[in-house]
Amino acid sequence: MTYRAPVEDLAFTMRHVAGLEEGIAEGLYPDLSLDLVEQVLEEAGRFASERIAPLNAPGDRAGARFADGEVTTAPGWKDVYRDWTEAGWNALPCDPEWGGQGLPSLVQTACVEFWNAACMSFALGPLLTAGAVEAITTHASEDLKRRYLAKLVSGEWMGTMNLTEPQAGSDLNAVRTRAERADDGTYRITGSKIFITYGEHDLTENIVHLVLARLPDAPPGTRGLSLFLVPKFLVNDDGSLGARNDVRCHSIEHKLGIHASPTCTMVYGDAGGAVGWLVGEENRGLACMFTMMNNARLAVGTQGVAIADRAYQQALSYARERRQGRAPGAAAGEGMSPLVLHPDVQRMLLTMKAMTHAARGICLMTAAAIDRGRLSGDAEARRRGHELASLLTPVAKAFSTDIGCEVASLGVQVHGGMGFVEETGAAQHLRDARIAPIYEGTNGIQAIDLVMRKLPLSDGATVRGAIADMRKVGARLVASRDEAFGASAARMREAVDALDDATSFLLKALAGNSSADVLAAATPYLRLFGIAQGGTALAKAALAASEARAAGDTNPAHAGRIALARFFAENIATGARGLAQTVMAGASALADAEAALAG
Amino acid sequence: MTYRAPVEDLAFTMRHVAGLEEGIAEGLYPDLSLDLVEQVLEEAGRFASERIAPLNAPGDRAGARFADGEVTTAPGWKDVYRDWTEAGWNALPCDPEWGGQGLPSLVQTACVEFWNAACMSFALGPLLTAGAVEAITTHASEDLKRRYLAKLVSGEWMGTMNLTEPQAGSDLNAVRTRAERADDGTYRITGSKIFITYGEHDLTENIVHLVLARLPDAPPGTRGLSLFLVPKFLVNDDGSLGARNDVRCHSIEHKLGIHASPTCTMVYGDAGGAVGWLVGEENRGLACMFTMMNNARLAVGTQGVAIADRAYQQALSYARERRQGRAPGAAAGEGMSPLVLHPDVQRMLLTMKAMTHAARGICLMTAAAIDRGRLSGDAEARRRGHELASLLTPVAKAFSTDIGCEVASLGVQVHGGMGFVEETGAAQHLRDARIAPIYEGTNGIQAIDLVMRKLPLSDGATVRGAIADMRKVGARLVASRDEAFGASAARMREAVDALDDATSFLLKALAGNSSADVLAAATPYLRLFGIAQGGTALAKAALAASEARAAGDTNPAHAGRIALARFFAENIATGARGLAQTVMAGASALADAEAALAG
Repeated sequence: MTYRAPVEDLAFTMRHVAGLEEGIAEGLYPDLSLDLVEQVLEEAGRFASERIAPLNAPGDRAGARFADGEVTTAPGWKDVYRDWTEAGWNALPCDPEWGGQGLPSLVQTACVEFWNAACMSFALGPLLTAGAVEAITTHASEDLKRRYLAKLVSGEWMGTMNLTEPQAGSDLNAVRTRAERADDGTYRITGSKIFITYGEHDLTENIVHLVLARLPDAPPGTRGLSLFLVPKFLVNDDGSLGARNDVRCHSIEHKLGIHASPTCTMVYGDAGGAVGWLVGEENRGLACMFTMMNNARLAVGTQGVAIADRAYQQALSYARERRQGRAPGAAAGEGMSPLVLHPDVQRMLLTMKAMTHAARGICLMTAAAIDRGRLSGDAEARRRGHELASLLTPVAKAFSTDIGCEVASLGVQVHGGMGFVEETGAAQHLRDARIAPIYEGTNGIQAIDLVMRKLPLSDGATVRGAIADMRKVGARLVASRDEAFGASAARMREAVDALDDATSFLLKALAGNSSADVLAAATPYLRLFGIAQGGTALAKAALAASEARAAGDTNPAHAGRIALARFFAENIATGARGLAQTVMAGASALADAEAALAG
Repeated sequence: MTYRAPVEDLAFTMRHVAGLEEGIAEGLYPDLSLDLVEQVLEEAGRFASERIAPLNAPGDRAGARFADGEVTTAPGWKDVYRDWTEAGWNALPCDPEWGGQGLPSLVQTACVEFWNAACMSFALGPLLTAGAVEAITTHASEDLKRRYLAKLVSGEWMGTMNLTEPQAGSDLNAVRTRAERADDGTYRITGSKIFITYGEHDLTENIVHLVLARLPDAPPGTRGLSLFLVPKFLVNDDGSLGARNDVRCHSIEHKLGIHASPTCTMVYGDAGGAVGWLVGEENRGLACMFTMMNNARLAVGTQGVAIADRAYQQALSYARERRQGRAPGAAAGEGMSPLVLHPDVQRMLLTMKAMTHAARGICLMTAAAIDRGRLSGDAEARRRGHELASLLTPVAKAFSTDIGCEVASLGVQVHGGMGFVEETGAAQHLRDARIAPIYEGTNGIQAIDLVMRKLPLSDGATVRGAIADMRKVGARLVASRDEAFGASAARMREAVDALDDATSFLLKALAGNSSADVLAAATPYLRLFGIAQGGTALAKAALAASEARAAGDTNPAHAGRIALARFFAENIATGARGLAQTVMAGASALADAEAALAG
């Protein structure tokens, strides 16, 4: 098997790091039990490993094919997609009113990891559909919901997000696609959109595009954007498909990775205007889009974890089989040792695993915060959950996708020369991983979002609370008498101290309107946050493992969790103080950027 | 122009960082003047930019093609290769006795950067040929030299290195290719070699393979390896080509990058044995191979610098043209700002440039040490030069190729979505860069070489001397009154202190035979060394710039050099202390690796 879904670790992390157990105990998840969650994960993991994972390498080779305005997905994809939707997986997080299963973000995030680890190109379509479902559920009229939601929830149709235009990548102020009011209350959409994931394909008979466009009398900038639902085929009142709409796929991109996911240039209104329906209010499109984007940002962060885990599994398997040289301590008569016994290979594999699990912890904690923000019975708890989710989302997106690339690159390295040969498959993970730091808001934009918009939440109390929670875990490390933790407590304390100092510096700079300092520090601060939060997540898992071991549980995974947290603390968290120094250098770090770049 | 050879910076770095000026003053380079060096760099830079660089993207798309045992290079390659050799560039570093120009390693390394930045796939063939020339020059019989060297030096023929076999990647103990003695003093070679760069191609009419093989009565392990020269076509006494030898290309690899460089599986002896000639002595092949490898390791490090600079140039150019959003301080009426004015983009570009220039400094310092080890009139100076070159070579190879990948990855990121589209070209740099940490000894092997074999040189005096030289530069930073240095002196001092502490730890561990501690620390120690040495190189350049400025030189490049050194010190050197902590955690970092990986 090329991918084994890490069901046990996901369940453990959900319970002991992301607070599933407390959530159930508090009544946050009235319909969930630990057994049910494990059952869902088992089933999802099986489908991902057995059905989706085999699509990954052939899909990369075949790619999505474009001809005459139509996109053909790779061989086998239609069948697996049909079976996947028929098994109900697309409906997992959706509102039961429209046929969804209503499972919380925490469970969905675990499953999203499995789908993406199995095949990122395959999972991308449903990822975008989930965002469309959420935007329509939250903002669209009852008529639109009735007409579209059930089939999007079931997966019979797929959804897309149409933001980017050639002149407007990250900057939505520059969107030019036009929307004109028609007499019947609908709109006519005209313009081009680029980089539209699954903008055209043969997996479903209809595709529902959500399109940002500008009304003739709209104010300039993002306050003049409206969101429109533009189906590929119009939908009759009885739900049957009507006329082909005036939207077509002009071409698809030739990309570094995710070859099997069609990235489309879409043209709206060649024949006078595509028929569109307003979602939400006129000129309030950005708010609707953010509904989709926040959902998608956590999902993209989870893609980083997913591809990292896939790359790690493959590298570990290779390192156990491949023999080269003699490892320290190997007896003379043993011949060549497996790579996995060489210290430098162990370091690579441990770095891969520690980074992956740290990012997994962050993503699941973010999902749990989203759930608390939605589901808690207490308004203040909802507010705090929502703010924590807002704080953690850019970290989950950017830290996880950065380490996704780093881990995939290490995966190539573990394979040596074989890693550079495409047939091995290690290189595909690196190629696929590389998109995730770019789309759904580049990681630079995530970092700016973190420092400029998220640190000020509740006057800094939200980030202070997150740091205080890290310190509580740190205190438990100090109190632990388990010697297997090594210097974990000291190193994690230094890391959280560093984050604390850097946070104080930035909050002060924000209060003093020194936005140059804050912007210059954004990227190293996000990394620092990820290291402290991710190390804390590993430590939480390790403390739970240590307690279980002390209580007589002999599961060998427990020793592994402690060793992994220790490796992270002693080898990765050690970078925290240097990052804080860099943050606190502030704008001076970039003061002479012009001169330095000019030479 | 897609690539502009950084002639001015190379000349400046050679003079002020690598000691070209002192070398000339001391008589180390009797035939060189600064003018001559600049003239050579100008000409090389022009050829690289105008003739070779245009091959890069089309070569990536076309790739090298294999059919019926023959390899066809990409369109245009034969012409450019012919012109390049006819202009004498292949002969640059070679012995004048065989038609070479006898220029030192320092000049050659600068040119190697240009060729590889222009097109890594193109430059790889000559890189291997240079290694073959050096091995033959140093170890082969006069007859072999007379028969082969002149044409290899001119580039009429190319050379290859044949080490790797399917079961013997990094571990040459496992080489199985057989050599049998023939009655006429030649040998018959039988076996398969994989990953042979330019093992077959149509650029030259003959190809000279250097092949590691084992005699029937050879001792096991690397002490039983002999090196053989195996030409594609036998060479008659008059220098004309004779019979086709019993060696063929079985296939070429489908790789992540360097598509235009054929990576061949070579089969020797299908028809009874390829005719080979011994190079050096029987069973002493490894020593000969090391002659080639040390040369090649610095060249591969230089490839890391080269691809990084190419990626940086492209990213900077894009960031100057592409407008998105409004940069801090931009006036309201200006519309969208160029990317280059956004702080997070500046940070990416500065990181790219600072890493690239740091690695360039290390590579040129290594080349200068090689020159001193060969050319100094004083035996003790030669010994010290040789040892310093030995110390720095693994750092030059591994640090530079690691940052090559990191910089190329940032180059993709600067381009946003466009970076992921292959047509842009940014992704090719990442794909090409990824091989360099793997071949010519993986970077893990470089790190082990550094800590296990290079730190103990002269009982640690060599590394101590290198650190003492860093401190001298640090003292000059402290003494400088140029405020543009910011906190450079403090940050660099902390970085060198960290290296010093880590070095003491490792020397003590080596003395105490704690090889587990040393091996576990190898990779972070090499990175730490690279940061301290690279930051020192930037500081040296900046100090020279500051002095020139104080003397009234208004060249704006001077301000840029100071700003770049400062950026490195305040943003990258800050990672040094954490790396030292990790080094000094020693083997405990990997103590429970088995448990941590098992879960």
